[in-house]
Amino acid sequence: MSNGAQALMKTLVDAGIEVCFTNPGTSEMHFVAALDAEPKMRAVLALFEGVATGAADGYARMADKPAATLLHLGCGLGNGLANLHNARKGKVPVVNIVGDHATYHVQYDAQLQSDIETVARNVSPGFVRTSRSTEALCQDAADAITAARGLPGQVATLILPADVSWGEGGKPCQVPEQQEAPAAGEQAIQNAAEAIRSGQKTALLLGGQALREPSLMAAARIAAHNGATLLAETFPTRMEKGAGLPPVERIAYLAELASLQLAEFEHLILVDAKAPVSFFGYPGKKSYLVPDSCQVHTLSTAEQNAPASLNRLVETLGAQHATPLVQHANRPGLPKGKLTAEKVCRAVGELMPEDSILVDEAITSGLMLNALTAGAPKHDLITLTGGAIGQGLPSATGAAIACPDRPVFALIGDGTAMYTIQALWTMARENLNVTSIIFNNASYSILNVELDRVGAQDSGAKAKSQLDISGPVTNFATLAQSMGVHGVRVSTSEELIKAIRYAQSQPGPHLIDAVVPESLNGMKRKVLPWLLKSLPSLPRPLTMALKKKIAP
Amino acid sequence: MSNGAQALMKTLVDAGIEVCFTNPGTSEMHFVAALDAEPKMRAVLALFEGVATGAADGYARMADKPAATLLHLGCGLGNGLANLHNARKGKVPVVNIVGDHATYHVQYDAQLQSDIETVARNVSPGFVRTSRSTEALCQDAADAITAARGLPGQVATLILPADVSWGEGGKPCQVPEQQEAPAAGEQAIQNAAEAIRSGQKTALLLGGQALREPSLMAAARIAAHNGATLLAETFPTRMEKGAGLPPVERIAYLAELASLQLAEFEHLILVDAKAPVSFFGYPGKKSYLVPDSCQVHTLSTAEQNAPASLNRLVETLGAQHATPLVQHANRPGLPKGKLTAEKVCRAVGELMPEDSILVDEAITSGLMLNALTAGAPKHDLITLTGGAIGQGLPSATGAAIACPDRPVFALIGDGTAMYTIQALWTMARENLNVTSIIFNNASYSILNVELDRVGAQDSGAKAKSQLDISGPVTNFATLAQSMGVHGVRVSTSEELIKAIRYAQSQPGPHLIDAVVPESLNGMKRKVLPWLLKSLPSLPRPLTMALKKKIAP
Repeated sequence: MSNGAQALMKTLVDAGIEVCFTNPGTSEMHFVAALDAEPKMRAVLALFEGVATGAADGYARMADKPAATLLHLGCGLGNGLANLHNARKGKVPVVNIVGDHATYHVQYDAQLQSDIETVARNVSPGFVRTSRSTEALCQDAADAITAARGLPGQVATLILPADVSWGEGGKPCQVPEQQEAPAAGEQAIQNAAEAIRSGQKTALLLGGQALREPSLMAAARIAAHNGATLLAETFPTRMEKGAGLPPVERIAYLAELASLQLAEFEHLILVDAKAPVSFFGYPGKKSYLVPDSCQVHTLSTAEQNAPASLNRLVETLGAQHATPLVQHANRPGLPKGKLTAEKVCRAVGELMPEDSILVDEAITSGLMLNALTAGAPKHDLITLTGGAIGQGLPSATGAAIACPDRPVFALIGDGTAMYTIQALWTMARENLNVTSIIFNNASYSILNVELDRVGAQDSGAKAKSQLDISGPVTNFATLAQSMGVHGVRVSTSEELIKAIRYAQSQPGPHLIDAVVPESLNGMKRKVLPWLLKSLPSLPRPLTMALKKKIAP
Repeated sequence: MSNGAQALMKTLVDAGIEVCFTNPGTSEMHFVAALDAEPKMRAVLALFEGVATGAADGYARMADKPAATLLHLGCGLGNGLANLHNARKGKVPVVNIVGDHATYHVQYDAQLQSDIETVARNVSPGFVRTSRSTEALCQDAADAITAARGLPGQVATLILPADVSWGEGGKPCQVPEQQEAPAAGEQAIQNAAEAIRSGQKTALLLGGQALREPSLMAAARIAAHNGATLLAETFPTRMEKGAGLPPVERIAYLAELASLQLAEFEHLILVDAKAPVSFFGYPGKKSYLVPDSCQVHTLSTAEQNAPASLNRLVETLGAQHATPLVQHANRPGLPKGKLTAEKVCRAVGELMPEDSILVDEAITSGLMLNALTAGAPKHDLITLTGGAIGQGLPSATGAAIACPDRPVFALIGDGTAMYTIQALWTMARENLNVTSIIFNNASYSILNVELDRVGAQDSGAKAKSQLDISGPVTNFATLAQSMGVHGVRVSTSEELIKAIRYAQSQPGPHLIDAVVPESLNGMKRKVLPWLLKSLPSLPRPLTMALKKKIAP
């Protein structure tokens, strides 16, 4: 005879959910106690819920299956909300378990009482359920697991009242096997094929699952055989890239650049992606970035099987035997002298080992990262899918737990690092192979650009001070040390190279506090000229578009 | 002609809202730009939204008027939710401004798009409004301000779309003066008077506004004249206490103790307080803590004027000329030798200057704090009203901004400190007079007690490890230094005393990392015997009840 928590634990591990990222409180104590009886469940403690949820996100991106979370009531869920938002936007499966008061206790409106379901709907529009009895609990959990790992993946929130957890009579449930998703229908494939064969400029916009090797190879066959251009969504959930894989240019973050990138196309074929829109609305600027003259087609939706759909398109086009263009191995060379953000990206591109996992939350400082790692050995890239900063360090934590034998590089802006800095403690506790590099420019640099872009350019000192985090400048090396992570501060390329090499030679977490100038310093209103300077390392067709733009 | 943001800024300052705690993003850039034109608005930047919302809470508790927040969309609100929850439960006014995408941009479901209103309802059940036009904005803001600072105070959420902010045609609004709340009705006063005169054991349970000096003095007159006992709610929003003020015993956190405390009473009269309930539900234990034989009366609700109601009760009872019993000055003496949590509380009780603000989020380590500061010079106490940990450091930040000339002591558990540790950076940036003392016992100590109390006592190593934060032990002194706060680690009483004296001699923020053993170590299942050891320093009637409990 099991209590609810014990039966729930068994239901989870039987469904292959073997990691739980936790920040529990009193209402979750029976779940915690049930850990003892279940050797297959690994519980990873976080000091803040945003770390737990971000780690669950990063874990699922790399493990291709969900982890569970364990959060404490509505407030714990609130603390975890931003990274669940990123998971939702990335279509990442998470079994989000939120403890609640005992059902009979709710009426007393005790201190921690709040409406959990209402908060949960923000990140779990597809599945929020409060389990009402110990008998029903495991079926509720099975439904949550099924919902989470469907296609598209989602955050399924299971609210677990304390008495449902401690009640006797829990019976573990079997969760049905995941169904293979269907490929796109014949009409969608024919439409896409027709556009590609039209002779008009056509791009395949790849997102979600379509950025993994099987899809990329299929798409590259089409590109080689029919001349279509390959584009990737701006913020991929997980993108396989590097030497030996087809190079795919991501849509630029800045709407101005994305519009240039898209200007030449007459057909845009979406594969598990949405038509590009501006990250924010700006006065007098368009939100929808596809040119009016461009037709948008959907090859496959997030509910469909992207690689199977692409393979059917390959067959329809007769491109099976085309040789995909792949990226040749090409390291950018080691940087020298005083550090800049670009030099940090260069050093990473030069030194990252094969099979690295690159977590990119470097915002402005990481602008050159993609170009400078393009020819590095094959690796995975994880990005900020939902725009809620504070995703990088937690995500790296989860990725390292999913892939203990792969080196993880977390490239993080100083502003964003501080949202979930407690992730360092979990990295130390679990001795994870994560090398975090913080771009310490002491500024919300992106906001300096944004302040300008929204048309508030003549701002004074008081406004600017809201974007300036230099008083005081955080010392991330000491900060890391305070949580048991090896930390070092560097300000030259040589120091950085030494630090990266040391980090790769010693297991466990390392943090490199890279003191750099603002990469966009003085840029403002000069986005294009600045980018043009960097042209040689930028991939096409953005490069081509920019070159045309400045040509007389 | 103003844009929306400029007119909003003027509406806020004209209504006396002169501090805004910010963590802005792109959608808030016009609000940020509008800061330049408004010298009366002080913008205080936080590196994490939970710091901004907690600071707004602490500020309002001490300033007796709301601050504004500035948060970035649904995710920023999520990050700030836990401390807004604490404000809500404490009936603290906050004008919670959440930026949103431009109204026309919402349809594109960009990365940061999410349902903000749905999240906001969790903490702002009484007022959530998305402003729909620049013309309507200032009236919306005025309504939000009125709602926030009504009685009871509340978190009023104003959602501010970017185009409403940047649009032209904003017109500042006047916000009506706050109305004096009415005193309790005649019937309520007569009922309370009758209970007090009945000769049966009666307690006045004071909460909210009733824990401030005018109410306390009135209640103490009744106690002196009629023999009623004075009790305070477990977690006061703000309680004035110390030498010269009437001593009031707080209802204990542990339901077992609270039940003992309440056992003797036949009448409980609520003054801006609710009838005591257990913090959590526990298997086989009652949630509602008032004995069946005790009648509950309401003198005044949170909507009514507590001091006026108490004064009318004083008159009705003829107690105007009674001499209230007040606490005599009584310092506990300096501790000696190896540090314990109790010795930290003792040192604070001995050394805190007059007019200190004490922020208590020390959880288990602070168990003796109340007793050991009872006779210290007059001070204010701020506590964790909503149970969402991570309130202390932000709240201290806000309190120090509200009261720049008063020393703030933040007594914080190590577990809770890590939720919003970024507050230290804001303390450094604003050079706030806050001395934070972290009880570093490397444990979620309270959860060890709770694991036991929920009946999961035979837990193994895996469960226990979820409550153990000793691997690694965080070094809060270095952590503080990394964010520009003077930090020192102490493990003896002598070092602690020196550190407190130094902190009081130097303006600006200080952090003392106090290494202490778990205060409840070995306690488990022995709550009563342990507390009885501490009897001499515990106030009545809990002491009396405990003594009776062990008497043969």
